[in-house]
Amino acid sequence: MKCKICKGKAVIKLKRHNIKLCKEHFNEFFIRQVEKAIKEFRMFSRKDKILVCVSGGKDSLVLWLVLSKLGYNVTGMYINLGIDEYSEKSKTKVINFAEKNNLKYTIVDLNELGYPIPELSKKSRRPECSVCGTVKRYYFNKIAYDYNFDVVATGHNLDDEASRLLGNILHWNDEYLEKQLPVLPAEGKMLKKKVKPLIRLTEQEIASFAFLNKVDYILDECPLSVGATSLVYKDALNLIEEKIVGTKQFFYLQYVKKLMKRLKNKNNEKGDIELKNCKICGMESFHEVCSFCRLVRDEK
Amino acid sequence: MKCKICKGKAVIKLKRHNIKLCKEHFNEFFIRQVEKAIKEFRMFSRKDKILVCVSGGKDSLVLWLVLSKLGYNVTGMYINLGIDEYSEKSKTKVINFAEKNNLKYTIVDLNELGYPIPELSKKSRRPECSVCGTVKRYYFNKIAYDYNFDVVATGHNLDDEASRLLGNILHWNDEYLEKQLPVLPAEGKMLKKKVKPLIRLTEQEIASFAFLNKVDYILDECPLSVGATSLVYKDALNLIEEKIVGTKQFFYLQYVKKLMKRLKNKNNEKGDIELKNCKICGMESFHEVCSFCRLVRDEK
Ligand SMILES: [Zn+2]
Ligand SMILES: [Zn+2]
Ligand SMILES: [Zn+2]
Ligand SMILES: [Zn+2]
Repeated sequence: MKCKICKGKAVIKLKRHNIKLCKEHFNEFFIRQVEKAIKEFRMFSRKDKILVCVSGGKDSLVLWLVLSKLGYNVTGMYINLGIDEYSEKSKTKVINFAEKNNLKYTIVDLNELGYPIPELSKKSRRPECSVCGTVKRYYFNKIAYDYNFDVVATGHNLDDEASRLLGNILHWNDEYLEKQLPVLPAEGKMLKKKVKPLIRLTEQEIASFAFLNKVDYILDECPLSVGATSLVYKDALNLIEEKIVGTKQFFYLQYVKKLMKRLKNKNNEKGDIELKNCKICGMESFHEVCSFCRLVRDEK
Repeated sequence: MKCKICKGKAVIKLKRHNIKLCKEHFNEFFIRQVEKAIKEFRMFSRKDKILVCVSGGKDSLVLWLVLSKLGYNVTGMYINLGIDEYSEKSKTKVINFAEKNNLKYTIVDLNELGYPIPELSKKSRRPECSVCGTVKRYYFNKIAYDYNFDVVATGHNLDDEASRLLGNILHWNDEYLEKQLPVLPAEGKMLKKKVKPLIRLTEQEIASFAFLNKVDYILDECPLSVGATSLVYKDALNLIEEKIVGTKQFFYLQYVKKLMKRLKNKNNEKGDIELKNCKICGMESFHEVCSFCRLVRDEK
């Protein structure tokens, strides 16, 4: 197996691009895909302060590393979710990774704040993954606002987004369908722009990059998400991709193109968004009391 | 396993409705689903002359039988595609079935007409399944027009339509997406209304009905369609249905609802459709020469 570019020893075959590459040229390919996404969707520039949400998993660590190598001003943000061993293990991975690669980071500890996810879920009687989503979104926004970041980046990849899109289409969740973009604009002053720079790369490509570049990530999935129905959409898409190569990418990226066009037309008609300040914590929200404060209040 | 209705011996479990039924009540359920589709989408009434396209497979034979039992005025139409053994075998099934159940039918023989599919495909250098589609559509319309039928019915089921919809969405085939309805209205004077009364029933339910009611259908798939990529969409949907029961039905029927609403709004704006008479055969078409005549002419 020879690298298509240098004829050296290939280490990976990219089926959907129908090429084999050596380590060096795979890295080059990988980084180019990240840059392409950043430019195509105008995610950020080298002047921006970027907060990268890191969980200790492969996607977020790879994103953090690549953005830093590309010379962007990145700071990692790790949220200790208070899920026993899993949280301790992933925290260690993040700290070691930051030290090895000389990266800045900040930690929010839900145990110290008194909001560990399992407890919050029990007290509010809401599913753990939903509680976790609300809490994470809140702190991403809060830290980004408090410390003057311009943009919040997450490690979502092509598989994540394509499978989520498939689930939303199969159940016609119109409200979510309207929001599934690689860039969500800032709203008000406090809710920062959100971006997904790994959108052009598959799970498998990211795992290969992590492996080839010795990124030491946590292999365990979050124990609370085991058996999540969302995995079945990934399996179904992979089944199709196996037979009809390129489907996953076309499906998602073409959707994004269509949606952006539609929203552009729509935005020309629509008025301002009504953001208020949460009565309890002061963060901007579309409700009188923000989702986080409603969640935390429920449990008291 | 007991029937939910009569507590007699159940013969089938309908997972997506979460009920078990005996033969009698399954038949009742099955027929009710057909009637529901006919009424919901205003497919036809007992005054209409209905041409049922029969291939000898389970879907079309079951449709033919059920419509006849419900008292509709149906005539079967079988097209001998000229695919060797497969065509001979399926023709025999259709004729025997008609005689056993005392059903009217008519046969179009592509061998006699000089248009057997394999030959037409070779000469026109077009894929067999696409040639077959063009030829079938042409004769459905032609026979329906020549013999004064009001509507043409086909045996497409929920799996067929949901998987086709999935394929069209994954590749964003906008043109096809606009047409994927259980009823396509008549156009001009010659292109009759098309309906799919089995739309609320799955492949598995239809196979069970056929088995329980001793419908003797051809088990072989068309040899030309073996390995068709469309099957992978069915597999993918079944994988999801297995975990999230009801997805298939919701996905397709909800889509139909949304599309019908959208078309209604659109139709209020749009003008007349431009149909012409084909210069060669005289059938109505959107082109100077209809697709069938273009196909047949190409090969000469
Ligand atoms: Zn190379
Ligand atoms: Zn609040
Ligand atoms: Zn019963
Ligand atoms: Zn013609």
